[in-house]
Amino acid sequence: MAELSLAQLHPSLDDPVLLSMNLLNDIASDHPQAVSFAAGRPYEEFFRVEQLHGYLDTFVTHLTEVVGLTDEEARRTVFQYGRTKGIIHDLVARYLEIDEGITVDPDAVVVTVGSQEAMFLTLRSLRASPQDVVLAVAPTYFGLTGAARLLDMPVLDVGDGDGGLDLADLGRQVATARAGGQRPRALYLVPDFSNPTGTSLDLATRIALLDLAADLDLLIIEDNPYGLFQADPATRPPTLKALDTRHQVVHVGSFAKTGLPGARVGFVVADQPVTRDGRPAGTLADQLSLIKSNVTLNTSPVAQAVIGGKLLRHGCSMVAANKREIEVYRANLRHVLTGLTARFAATGPVTWNTPAGGFFVVLTVPFAVDDRSLRRSARDHGVIWTPMHHFHTGMASSHQIRLSFSLLDDASIDEGLDRLTAFVTAEAKTPGHSA
Amino acid sequence: MAELSLAQLHPSLDDPVLLSMNLLNDIASDHPQAVSFAAGRPYEEFFRVEQLHGYLDTFVTHLTEVVGLTDEEARRTVFQYGRTKGIIHDLVARYLEIDEGITVDPDAVVVTVGSQEAMFLTLRSLRASPQDVVLAVAPTYFGLTGAARLLDMPVLDVGDGDGGLDLADLGRQVATARAGGQRPRALYLVPDFSNPTGTSLDLATRIALLDLAADLDLLIIEDNPYGLFQADPATRPPTLKALDTRHQVVHVGSFAKTGLPGARVGFVVADQPVTRDGRPAGTLADQLSLIKSNVTLNTSPVAQAVIGGKLLRHGCSMVAANKREIEVYRANLRHVLTGLTARFAATGPVTWNTPAGGFFVVLTVPFAVDDRSLRRSARDHGVIWTPMHHFHTGMASSHQIRLSFSLLDDASIDEGLDRLTAFVTAEAKTPGHSA
Repeated sequence: MAELSLAQLHPSLDDPVLLSMNLLNDIASDHPQAVSFAAGRPYEEFFRVEQLHGYLDTFVTHLTEVVGLTDEEARRTVFQYGRTKGIIHDLVARYLEIDEGITVDPDAVVVTVGSQEAMFLTLRSLRASPQDVVLAVAPTYFGLTGAARLLDMPVLDVGDGDGGLDLADLGRQVATARAGGQRPRALYLVPDFSNPTGTSLDLATRIALLDLAADLDLLIIEDNPYGLFQADPATRPPTLKALDTRHQVVHVGSFAKTGLPGARVGFVVADQPVTRDGRPAGTLADQLSLIKSNVTLNTSPVAQAVIGGKLLRHGCSMVAANKREIEVYRANLRHVLTGLTARFAATGPVTWNTPAGGFFVVLTVPFAVDDRSLRRSARDHGVIWTPMHHFHTGMASSHQIRLSFSLLDDASIDEGLDRLTAFVTAEAKTPGHSA
Repeated sequence: MAELSLAQLHPSLDDPVLLSMNLLNDIASDHPQAVSFAAGRPYEEFFRVEQLHGYLDTFVTHLTEVVGLTDEEARRTVFQYGRTKGIIHDLVARYLEIDEGITVDPDAVVVTVGSQEAMFLTLRSLRASPQDVVLAVAPTYFGLTGAARLLDMPVLDVGDGDGGLDLADLGRQVATARAGGQRPRALYLVPDFSNPTGTSLDLATRIALLDLAADLDLLIIEDNPYGLFQADPATRPPTLKALDTRHQVVHVGSFAKTGLPGARVGFVVADQPVTRDGRPAGTLADQLSLIKSNVTLNTSPVAQAVIGGKLLRHGCSMVAANKREIEVYRANLRHVLTGLTARFAATGPVTWNTPAGGFFVVLTVPFAVDDRSLRRSARDHGVIWTPMHHFHTGMASSHQIRLSFSLLDDASIDEGLDRLTAFVTAEAKTPGHSA
């Protein structure tokens, strides 16, 4: 009988980073009654099946009435294999202009199977030899680390400092890597409401980063799943891509949070000029498209039509499309912060940060937190969350907890925070568990 | 300004294999009026946008009425992030039982973004070190070769002999590879109506292949996009997976031809037991799922719902769902073969094969055929087709042409064959072009 040993399969399959998501999902499904501060899914109370029908019809009507296709051509666009770079690239470019102030040639957009594929394609293009490495602001979303592991590409940590990025550490890490014979290709970060910390870079740091990256000859991979969910829209600084005048930024986006996760539609803007033997040879987007045609061929046109329809119904603004959701996230963030203050401000020594939006708050507790602590929290206290060590590339132990609040309401936040308080109290008292 | 040289990007991006699809698409779009024997897309005259609505509703109703989910749970299943291995795995397993005689645990099925992702995940799992290589029956579908290139995994050719596979050559290639320090992991082939040759393996060869692969300790990757399109259903031998009693076969399937391409839904059956330090650790499907969660996270649940609904409407039989299409393909195959006989049987020396179904016929002409010949054919004679060298891993020149007939009708076949005759006559007369 054909039997395979893990030792004969790709080494990443035995790497804790790849196992994180499964392990966390397992704990969650073992405790379905627990209040979950773990899930990073968007708010779902406004989902209706009728919306899918409406979005599809809107997109098909757009193809015939605005683009000018015949009925047969419109059908073919949605039903058949399609353009590798996508069929809603022009709508994505309009959305970026309207919501993000990013002006980009639609031909530099590659529509992908979520932002995960966008990161995977980008890393595949840049990992040309074993010397190539990617830097990432730590703690780091494990989707980036996982993609890098699959490509045998080392991820070097860069400190997040006080404001979300330690620029001096970036310079040091690049210098050390180069001295060691490595070739740093890009820095990955989530500048707005980072996953996992919720932190955002201020404008001065963004500008300084762009200048430093230019000096260091380093691309920036900007991942922007949460940017539109600012608690106070007036205070949001521009994205790195909106500030990018030198084609330094590969901008990765997702409609999982603003459109619907079930479409699995994301994109990457890669307008970097590429040369062959010194002569112009298109853009990095063209190269990502070549890779994509051998990974997934193209992103489902049916799924793209659903997202395209949602964009069209709201004038290509996902801020407009998510008015109600943005209000929910804002209220939930406020409720979590108020609730934490009410429960921990007097007693200490639990602390937390104060994000300006997004889905996440980080709690620092007076004991080390690992997956066993999470299991105890789920089993004994009925509340789950994400231990921060899953976001450290070396899985180093941590005193931090990521709380996600996107899927909750006031009552479940209150109940969850009460349970979390009980967990923290119990853990802090147990000598064997504290550190 | 950030500018990238191709020399700094992954070497596959400068490989002719990755450029094949783009080049062929470019020639096709430069000549929109040409009759196309190039496109491998399914027949599209029966597509209706209303079908998408119907399929979605059928699937959601199935979730509530048969599976027993609440409306909210059903909505969540389609709208939210989902199970990495897919949400229609049980329907895929029923389909495999009904249409293919394959009995498989639904948990060994991973629903993928088309068969391309299925091949990519499988090769990623098996390419554990630089010694690992995959064998492929040549000529080979370039989606397999492209995926291997992205993973720096060599593809070794195995001859296709008279009946679609030269078993002695398989043994020789494995022995030579091992003697050279390589580790052959699997043989890739399309046993039913191969792309590009249209050839099918007979039952005796299938059984002999399974035995030989067991002796050689080699997995088989069976790619089955066309199996249901047999001209005479009574004569189709069982798939390799249906004959597989030793978990030797990784079975890759696609709903692009039988469902709709625009859903981009395929799957892989990988029931191979995996061990960790000698102890059971699930199946290869579990490992492919881990990889998938870092490539595309999951296959669009909306797209899966469309395919799920189509399956449900036809009792999980794609043979039943494709009654009309199967009749079209059968009639087109007959019409092409009759047309070739009428035009070339007397004059020679053009020859062709006689597939028992599928989408493709191979023509052998008395001159070498390359992309320049294709451009002349398109420009001077208004007919396009696929030069066979694109299916040879070394892109060796060839006297063969792949004719695809899935998208045509009788009149366009007649017109296309007339134009092809003119092209062949002109080329054969031109000394500079003949070889």
